[in-house]
Amino acid sequence: MIGKLNHVGVATPSIDASITLYRDMLGATRIGTPFDLPHQGVRVAFVDLPNSQIELIEPLGDDSPIHAFLAKNPKGGQHHICFEVPDILAARDAMLAKGATVLRGGEPRIGAHGVPVIFIHPKDMGGVLIELMAEVHH
Amino acid sequence: MIGKLNHVGVATPSIDASITLYRDMLGATRIGTPFDLPHQGVRVAFVDLPNSQIELIEPLGDDSPIHAFLAKNPKGGQHHICFEVPDILAARDAMLAKGATVLRGGEPRIGAHGVPVIFIHPKDMGGVLIELMAEVHH
Repeated sequence: MIGKLNHVGVATPSIDASITLYRDMLGATRIGTPFDLPHQGVRVAFVDLPNSQIELIEPLGDDSPIHAFLAKNPKGGQHHICFEVPDILAARDAMLAKGATVLRGGEPRIGAHGVPVIFIHPKDMGGVLIELMAEVHH
Repeated sequence: MIGKLNHVGVATPSIDASITLYRDMLGATRIGTPFDLPHQGVRVAFVDLPNSQIELIEPLGDDSPIHAFLAKNPKGGQHHICFEVPDILAARDAMLAKGATVLRGGEPRIGAHGVPVIFIHPKDMGGVLIELMAEVHH
């Protein structure tokens, strides 16, 4: 089922500081402009690598799900892994049928790449929050 | 400097249970046979994705660095991100010159792919343990 590793989500208390880190310390040359996803309560920016991406994620608003993560990990840290799937609804149904806990009752929403995504609770996933996203066709 | 996202390291209390998870729950079709890296104190297996890999990591021996991680994260979780670099010694020197803390005094060792690797302490890396590995030329 899972295809490409689309991105690794990395939570940060400061997206600007993280951009500086990836640009100046690690020498990443292609970093997108940050933008808000108000419905998800996050501000994000993508570091483009030749084969995948790092999604930098800063909390947006008081209800952001990232606040709890940063309370446990004040410097930030790895937040989720996103895999592409050919069919998001088929993937959702397969995960539910296998007993996984799909967040939001399994209702996909539009993610940072403009395609539907779901999240699988880490308790069933070896402690890793998994995002599944519909393949992007260019 | 950083090139491809070579793999995401995922620590697990049971590599066999994680292989079952990635194969049966997530539908990964190419998973390598686990093998020991005694000098690193880990047993690993790679889940091959079309563009990258997940490295499953189980502690090996009483001195394994993975024990402390699992004490904090009993179900397992994301442990490190590995980026390829064209020249491991140049990367090491650049990181040291910029004030990063390179583990093992900056001495590369041979990693799971048979090429030299270094690890950068998460305190300088937004809470993320970063592995840099020499590009693999096939």
